[in-house]
Amino acid sequence: MEISALHIETAKAHESATREVLASLGRACDDRGPAHVANRLAEISRWLEDDLADVEREIAGVGADGASFAEKSARHLLDRGGKRLRPICVALASRVGSGFNAEARDLAIAVELVHSATLLHDDVVDLGDVRRGAPAARMIYGNAASIFGGDWLLVEALGRIVAAGVPGVLDRALATIREMVVAETRQLERRGRVSATVREYLEIARGKTASLFRWAMFAGARAGGTSEEVCAALEELGAHIGLAFQIVDDVLDLDGGAEVGKSLLTDLREGKMTYPLIVATQKSPELVALLEEACRSEEPAMPPEVSRRILAVVRETQATRAALDVAQQMCAEGVSCLAKLPPGKPRDALASVALAIPARRK
Amino acid sequence: MEISALHIETAKAHESATREVLASLGRACDDRGPAHVANRLAEISRWLEDDLADVEREIAGVGADGASFAEKSARHLLDRGGKRLRPICVALASRVGSGFNAEARDLAIAVELVHSATLLHDDVVDLGDVRRGAPAARMIYGNAASIFGGDWLLVEALGRIVAAGVPGVLDRALATIREMVVAETRQLERRGRVSATVREYLEIARGKTASLFRWAMFAGARAGGTSEEVCAALEELGAHIGLAFQIVDDVLDLDGGAEVGKSLLTDLREGKMTYPLIVATQKSPELVALLEEACRSEEPAMPPEVSRRILAVVRETQATRAALDVAQQMCAEGVSCLAKLPPGKPRDALASVALAIPARRK
Repeated sequence: MEISALHIETAKAHESATREVLASLGRACDDRGPAHVANRLAEISRWLEDDLADVEREIAGVGADGASFAEKSARHLLDRGGKRLRPICVALASRVGSGFNAEARDLAIAVELVHSATLLHDDVVDLGDVRRGAPAARMIYGNAASIFGGDWLLVEALGRIVAAGVPGVLDRALATIREMVVAETRQLERRGRVSATVREYLEIARGKTASLFRWAMFAGARAGGTSEEVCAALEELGAHIGLAFQIVDDVLDLDGGAEVGKSLLTDLREGKMTYPLIVATQKSPELVALLEEACRSEEPAMPPEVSRRILAVVRETQATRAALDVAQQMCAEGVSCLAKLPPGKPRDALASVALAIPARRK
Repeated sequence: MEISALHIETAKAHESATREVLASLGRACDDRGPAHVANRLAEISRWLEDDLADVEREIAGVGADGASFAEKSARHLLDRGGKRLRPICVALASRVGSGFNAEARDLAIAVELVHSATLLHDDVVDLGDVRRGAPAARMIYGNAASIFGGDWLLVEALGRIVAAGVPGVLDRALATIREMVVAETRQLERRGRVSATVREYLEIARGKTASLFRWAMFAGARAGGTSEEVCAALEELGAHIGLAFQIVDDVLDLDGGAEVGKSLLTDLREGKMTYPLIVATQKSPELVALLEEACRSEEPAMPPEVSRRILAVVRETQATRAALDVAQQMCAEGVSCLAKLPPGKPRDALASVALAIPARRK
């Protein structure tokens, strides 16, 4: 019931445009599998090569001459790389307008720094040991340094947004960070409560993840000087792919293997209900007792037997497939917003990136 | 040796102006003791009554309708009151210029919110149980909520600084917060190292405490549209009283009784070397072993015997008196900067506030 509510919610008012846009733009990815998606993304990366190289070079310099553990914590995380998907959103959105100018570059760096700041704080909150396949910064420099490192990165990010001086972008950044913090806190308050609803899930995911993707698109669009209408369409796309990104993240926690750089059921061990788990409990209510047992456990690692049983029930319900379907539909809905954009390479690339989200394996 | 270096450092180039300014402005406080100081501050408070009432009303509304633990943590701290010394600095500095306008009010609120944000993070870092005579927010809402609460307050503060729109003030706010974070981290790195020098102490105190007082003066001056010269003088005053404030804070940790709202030797238990402890170890090198023992102890509370012995040695060295003398001299040096200001009520009030700092008992 709630899952269908989600479908309705994501369907929005774009239906008339959807088919045509998907036909012309979505051809690239659709159902042709990860290999094709990887090729298409590699192609886009080559196209954005100079933009992304600029961003990487600048990110490599952030806090590099800082001697305090705040800066070292920040550097430890930044040096582990990452998909840089949010900077890619800024770059592509700016290219819909006048292109990836100096302002767009600053904002692309800033969005990655804001994201990194939240990761440093989240790892302390969740007592996360591993991040991007390596020990989390807090395991090396301590919790306190990770807190201060997050503060430091946040200020560094805001400084770049101020320097970019693109009207409206700073206010929206502050509102977005506030939204992220409140959503993270709400997630915390619900910790260990297994009976989550899709509505509650969506509220949190929009705040903690989708809002920053939305801002990335907004920032890029404004830096590129697009029209209000195009900017709004890009924001919609950002919100959709952000939500889809989170759902895929949830799926990888159940089905990710070693590629994700963390072990399975990490979210559950942290007491977080994920989208596929909510779907699975709706299909198999007996799962609730099992999840409650897992959340109650005081052990640092989940007993392998409990973990095995949970994964078996989830597999039976095909919840990860259902979750990926929703993510896919969400991305398709996002792509439908692109009808408002002028045709061209940036629009095609944005569609490809959106449709690639559900195919990601890490 | 290092203490005399400090004296030289604070003496600066103001000597010629000092005597005259102190004679005309400093009459109010000087050595006439806490009762007189309290009266003079009460008088200033009455003069600033409307300004401060505006600030309190606005602070009372911050996060008041927020339901998340981030906002609740922030409210818990803000509801405990506080001296609001930083907003008073903004108000007085603005009154040196055109007065306490709407922009100055926003900045006065912002400085208190930045200060509160750092307290929420510091309490998590130091595992502080008590703040302003009540359980710290983290004891009620948890560490994670305190981290997010700090983030939330920081964003709230920056939003108000952006809204005030006073040129240059936002950039300086970001630089100041960065300075505070780095200093807090440096303090952390030195945790438990008893052999601190005055130079190291001053570097940290300037960053973690004085920088925000300096910014408060800068922000008020800019909002009031003072000249560059007056603004610079107010900043100097802010830096001086900020440093003095920290030294007095250190003294209260050794000699504060119940008024401070926390127990004695809290700083030492947190592994922080304070100004009077550094003075005391220089006078009584045998204290070092005792302090090392106290820092090494894994007990949550310091053994009363160790605590008694430390306090006895410190008392013998008269280190708190020496520290208060330095604080007093620092404030006097700060007041000497006021020679650059037009004479009048704001200048007199600033001098009184500065000279009252060493007399505070909480």
